[in-house]
Amino acid sequence: MGTNNIHAEMEAMGRKALDASRSLARLTAKGRDNALSAMASAIEKARDAIAEANAKDVAAARKAGLKESMVDRLTLTPARFKAMVAGVRDVAALPDPLRRTSRPVVRPSGIRIVRQPVPIGVIAIIFESRPNVTADAAALCVKSGNAVILRGGKEAFATNSAIAAAMADGLASAGLPPDAVQLVRTTDHAAVNELVALEGLVDLVIPRGGESLIRAVVEHARVPVLKHYNGICHIFVDESADAKAALRIIGNAKCQRPSACNAVETVLVHSAIAKAFIPRLGKECAKWGVEVFADEKALAIGKGCGFKAASEESWRREYLGLAMSLAVVDGVEAAIDHINRYGSHHSDAILTRDENAAALFTRDVDSAAVYVNASTRFTDGGEFGFGCEMGISTDKIHARGPVGIKELTSYKYVVKGQDSIR
Amino acid sequence: MGTNNIHAEMEAMGRKALDASRSLARLTAKGRDNALSAMASAIEKARDAIAEANAKDVAAARKAGLKESMVDRLTLTPARFKAMVAGVRDVAALPDPLRRTSRPVVRPSGIRIVRQPVPIGVIAIIFESRPNVTADAAALCVKSGNAVILRGGKEAFATNSAIAAAMADGLASAGLPPDAVQLVRTTDHAAVNELVALEGLVDLVIPRGGESLIRAVVEHARVPVLKHYNGICHIFVDESADAKAALRIIGNAKCQRPSACNAVETVLVHSAIAKAFIPRLGKECAKWGVEVFADEKALAIGKGCGFKAASEESWRREYLGLAMSLAVVDGVEAAIDHINRYGSHHSDAILTRDENAAALFTRDVDSAAVYVNASTRFTDGGEFGFGCEMGISTDKIHARGPVGIKELTSYKYVVKGQDSIR
Repeated sequence: MGTNNIHAEMEAMGRKALDASRSLARLTAKGRDNALSAMASAIEKARDAIAEANAKDVAAARKAGLKESMVDRLTLTPARFKAMVAGVRDVAALPDPLRRTSRPVVRPSGIRIVRQPVPIGVIAIIFESRPNVTADAAALCVKSGNAVILRGGKEAFATNSAIAAAMADGLASAGLPPDAVQLVRTTDHAAVNELVALEGLVDLVIPRGGESLIRAVVEHARVPVLKHYNGICHIFVDESADAKAALRIIGNAKCQRPSACNAVETVLVHSAIAKAFIPRLGKECAKWGVEVFADEKALAIGKGCGFKAASEESWRREYLGLAMSLAVVDGVEAAIDHINRYGSHHSDAILTRDENAAALFTRDVDSAAVYVNASTRFTDGGEFGFGCEMGISTDKIHARGPVGIKELTSYKYVVKGQDSIR
Repeated sequence: MGTNNIHAEMEAMGRKALDASRSLARLTAKGRDNALSAMASAIEKARDAIAEANAKDVAAARKAGLKESMVDRLTLTPARFKAMVAGVRDVAALPDPLRRTSRPVVRPSGIRIVRQPVPIGVIAIIFESRPNVTADAAALCVKSGNAVILRGGKEAFATNSAIAAAMADGLASAGLPPDAVQLVRTTDHAAVNELVALEGLVDLVIPRGGESLIRAVVEHARVPVLKHYNGICHIFVDESADAKAALRIIGNAKCQRPSACNAVETVLVHSAIAKAFIPRLGKECAKWGVEVFADEKALAIGKGCGFKAASEESWRREYLGLAMSLAVVDGVEAAIDHINRYGSHHSDAILTRDENAAALFTRDVDSAAVYVNASTRFTDGGEFGFGCEMGISTDKIHARGPVGIKELTSYKYVVKGQDSIR
């Protein structure tokens, strides 16, 4: 497809999505939940077609020599398929994010103002390999009354197409416009650049993927982008921390799921306890199989622990695996400075028994989630009680931290007058 | 200054602003209010220097042949100067936008989550001619704990510089970093492009000005932009409207301040009452001195009213003056379609005695403020009870409608565990 054709095709998708979003916005909560049920049932019914499409994608990925971990992410096992369908039904069961109208305010002029939640409109979601995101993201958008344009990774194109087709069938069977959920039908990268420039048609772009994907989207975007940069998360072990608890929390934050964005990447240790704590941490890391990149002081204290030397670039490193950076700092202020300077404003924790240190840390660390005596791994829509999430925003605009269905809404002011004029 | 120098200078400003924002974020509400008082007093003290600078700008503008209306906007009369100082003090007197911490939620895992309002960080404001925006915008940012980088119109450069210098003096006298309020020190347009690309230093850009300014900012932005596109606002006169009230409301919405973004630009009339209403409206418009661009039906009905023929482009026209577009529509649905299609999603009103029509209109019109029996002119921070405003957002992300000090805040989650792990 030529660039002009892609532009025309993306614009046409945007217009259809806008029309569909008007219909969705008119639905009651029950209407939206029925749509989700119909989507779930339709995916279930299309099980064979989806499995076949997935087998094709997997075979092509193997043939192209993709890493086995990538092939695994791509594979829709029967268990994952079941979880995907259940996920759509779980979203339907969540409370309606559009129900809470504000209390009316009556102004001296006599006008009566109500702030009412409304869908954002049309959301474009750009994601990478895992095909279950297709159903997941669509469900969250429909639940909050938004039309969605999905653009998945090219490796999962056949699978995504089969899932999206099933969802469109489900919407149609519920009497709704199938264009409420559309998948971009080309793997050409130019389509992304066109999609994110559709001012007046697309209201929000959410890129879900690595940093290079997000940077490319931001560069071409003419519509707002909700950014989910990955996490460079810290744990600061304060002077007064309980050492045993600290080791357990660091182990959890690093090892429970090292590839998660809320896994810890850098541990900072208060200099007053470094000599006692660092050798114990070194021993645990060896047990966990965690490689440690340490600053000079930690390296000296942890002699014999097998630490490697950290470089300036270690402090900005997101390992996404069994490795971490380690530094000795002179106190809570130094820890805060380090975190604000090198972190990604995602999730950062202090382990301490000192309330003043905790208060300073939570006030001054400029991150979406700031923890006291807890693992950074809790930054998650499910753990926060949102039921589910679209991702974790590292932006400070619109939504910060876990993005649930409530974060996929906007609002409008409904103002009633008595033939009121200014 | 070469482009490289401008890049370096903007980056340096961004870094200073980021540092200052950390200090501001640590202040109590009282500390921020003291800063505002000090800024107001310093502006007052610099009255002569500011007046002198303004005289220079005004003389240069006259010499350059600027329109008298532009020269007027530029002129800081003694009354406007007084209002500017009072404005800063009024902002200080507003309630603290950072005070409302959410009720804690305790999750099954034992973690206790609080959502706490925090400043956004560093806000860049790009505006056009009126120099009082310099003080106004700075005050709103400081009140909400944000550092601000101001970039004003080049015609007001001397005036803005004098006001900004006074505010920095005020901040310093209150023991605060003067870099919390900085003015871009070059009129080179390249500075704007650099400023809006400062990812990691600038958290939000707010362009205040005409559409071309906003488009240019969006094109170069790499950080989020809160857009304040001007208003193509509508009034729909329904079948059941009270004609006398309708004429009064239209007159107010069009004539009370025609240059405002919430002034009405297009009036839609229900076909069932068009024959009775349009000639009366025509007569009033003639009295008000309002030029009318009418569609075929309205033109035929309003023969003798001196209407001109509307073209397709009339429906997207923001007159910002004593002119308006006029069309006959077949009912509330047709009115809604017209508004959603041609409007700018700013402020739109229905005049009706029919509750069903009002309900349909307020549900389906996709605008920041939707009115029943009131003038669109009420969309304003002051009228809404926000105390003041940075502008009116036509975006659906982050803030919609009037942007007050609350809309200049973000939030963070503060999570306390009991050595909690996942």
